[in-house]
Amino acid sequence: MHDQTPCIDLGRLESVYAPLAESIRRLIDISIRTEAEPAAVAAVQAKIDAAAAELGEAAQPGPVGVHYLPDGQTVAWGNAVVGVRNPVAPPLVVHHEPDGVVWSEFTLGAAYEGPPGHVHGGICALVLDHVLGATAHRPGRPAYTGTLTLRYRRRTELGRPLRVQAHVERTEGVKTFAVGHLADEDGVTVEAEGIFIHPRQSPA
Amino acid sequence: MHDQTPCIDLGRLESVYAPLAESIRRLIDISIRTEAEPAAVAAVQAKIDAAAAELGEAAQPGPVGVHYLPDGQTVAWGNAVVGVRNPVAPPLVVHHEPDGVVWSEFTLGAAYEGPPGHVHGGICALVLDHVLGATAHRPGRPAYTGTLTLRYRRRTELGRPLRVQAHVERTEGVKTFAVGHLADEDGVTVEAEGIFIHPRQSPA
Repeated sequence: MHDQTPCIDLGRLESVYAPLAESIRRLIDISIRTEAEPAAVAAVQAKIDAAAAELGEAAQPGPVGVHYLPDGQTVAWGNAVVGVRNPVAPPLVVHHEPDGVVWSEFTLGAAYEGPPGHVHGGICALVLDHVLGATAHRPGRPAYTGTLTLRYRRRTELGRPLRVQAHVERTEGVKTFAVGHLADEDGVTVEAEGIFIHPRQSPA
Repeated sequence: MHDQTPCIDLGRLESVYAPLAESIRRLIDISIRTEAEPAAVAAVQAKIDAAAAELGEAAQPGPVGVHYLPDGQTVAWGNAVVGVRNPVAPPLVVHHEPDGVVWSEFTLGAAYEGPPGHVHGGICALVLDHVLGATAHRPGRPAYTGTLTLRYRRRTELGRPLRVQAHVERTEGVKTFAVGHLADEDGVTVEAEGIFIHPRQSPA
């Protein structure tokens, strides 16, 4: 990494780009539910296209849509689950307890639908993969999913408070065995277990 | 269902709401990659908030963000994987071959990031859950995920052409056993197997 690598400006992230993403999340949710007339939608679409063009003038170069973090680690602002800059992310705020439990509480709206009125089974998998994986992450030493197994006990409703939590069951060398679940106020909806792997360090 | 239930206007979906979602997808991608200055972002955010307010005037009522299909089936325009109205969906176009193979080809950009430059493992799970499940769907008779197991062979890059495919291995009563994988041009990146369940019909 050389001197020209830009530093992440966390202040600008919090005050500028995170609110932008939040506005786009609201737009996404409303855009799915709107029944606006064609002329109104056309006018709105013109605004959105203009907004994208303005932001695009200063978009970082690279392959279409690929976003690389400046330093390759730790501030996952573009992450599909927790990225505060990513309008696709709910985003989850993940908490790490001293006893190793990792958890998050959140609510999912129209953008995460599978069966009508319910969370897409794959979105449940997305959230569980992330939070089970988070039990294995260490600063500067990410863990990657090796295997993930999900058991769906019942459907998960959109619009209700949800909680996801996970903990480490055991570790074996580079492997972390994690278990967890997704739940609503009536109990568990999806159970998960996974093996997360720390890539071996380069030989000294 | 009574007479006032609105019909789905497929023409309006295709000509009005699908292009709106596509514009928002472009906005999402650029918003993650932009390095625009705070004043420029503020101006853009005002446009986006105005757009959301205009669409919100005609948004269907209901719990925050919950989107119910008018007839409860078949046109999954809000679906998180295939919904043409859902800006969070890539969206995948899913093909069903006469021999039972279900497949889709697509490319994922910045909005689906996990490890820097790579697809989030949970997004791989989301796509595989949907396409394995699609092998079990029958018109008017949806199938729900019972279990899903994923084996990650290597990371999946953002920005490269990807293919997901699945087929039915066997069926047992209400259970469909499906297998499949996600692959890039160099081969398989994630393998999956799942059990999908048709809820039993109401007793006659």
